[in-house]
Amino acid sequence: MNETAFISTDEMLKHWQGHRALTRRAIEVFPEEALFTYSIGGMRTFGELALEMLRMAVPTAEGAATRVWPTSFSGDLTTKAALLERWDADTARLNELWAAIPPERFEEDDVAFGAFPGKINWLLQYVIDNEIHHRGQGYVYLRALGIEPPAFYER
Amino acid sequence: MNETAFISTDEMLKHWQGHRALTRRAIEVFPEEALFTYSIGGMRTFGELALEMLRMAVPTAEGAATRVWPTSFSGDLTTKAALLERWDADTARLNELWAAIPPERFEEDDVAFGAFPGKINWLLQYVIDNEIHHRGQGYVYLRALGIEPPAFYER
Repeated sequence: MNETAFISTDEMLKHWQGHRALTRRAIEVFPEEALFTYSIGGMRTFGELALEMLRMAVPTAEGAATRVWPTSFSGDLTTKAALLERWDADTARLNELWAAIPPERFEEDDVAFGAFPGKINWLLQYVIDNEIHHRGQGYVYLRALGIEPPAFYER
Repeated sequence: MNETAFISTDEMLKHWQGHRALTRRAIEVFPEEALFTYSIGGMRTFGELALEMLRMAVPTAEGAATRVWPTSFSGDLTTKAALLERWDADTARLNELWAAIPPERFEEDDVAFGAFPGKINWLLQYVIDNEIHHRGQGYVYLRALGIEPPAFYER
């Protein structure tokens, strides 16, 4: 088995924070009145999808860093301002938690939140992929609302 | 600078092929008559988005493996069967090309297709992220068409 690194943990954090900056811009341009009300095809609103991102990001990094999985998420956010404020607080918190993940931990098996088995790098990657997936859906909502989403290639 | 590996190149290929298998299922369940005609908010059809994924994946892996960037993409596919056939051929081709990427190459700077500067791992990651982003948009199209998309967590 080839054990060449594809990407370092430092690069991966930078990559994720670049994606998070893009998601923040998508939240910013989303019309306040549509954020928690507009949806297509019975899907969740973009506000609900953004809340899911927040519920996954810091708690997963916390479990990775401390080996203790949080069981609750505080905050029932209902406005754009509250979402963005939490987003920024979590940006700083993610940097702290990421730095505290022991190097050998990324290849360890664990069960996130007592429910989702996988290696730590796989679990973190899942959270990032989930954000990209749902942000892409938010882009469709924005287009349907006649609003230009932020450029995907800018991070 | 911490140089711990987040994920190995072997794991990354497996991760990508897992995503590609999911995207293939999304193409499979997409109604043939809507694949190249249906869209929301003036966006591209899911067929066009899938074609973009094909235009990026193998050519980027080829540039990574050979240091020569292809300048054309053959095939003007217009049916689901043709897309899926190309998808499967490219799955095999990606495995071959990935194995041919020199280990030190992932951290090298290059200019993909003479136009997009970046490290090889960043360029490959961009192609994967772009697939996740656009597949998420295909999920909205599917929901709007009343069709259940494949489960995101199955790869």
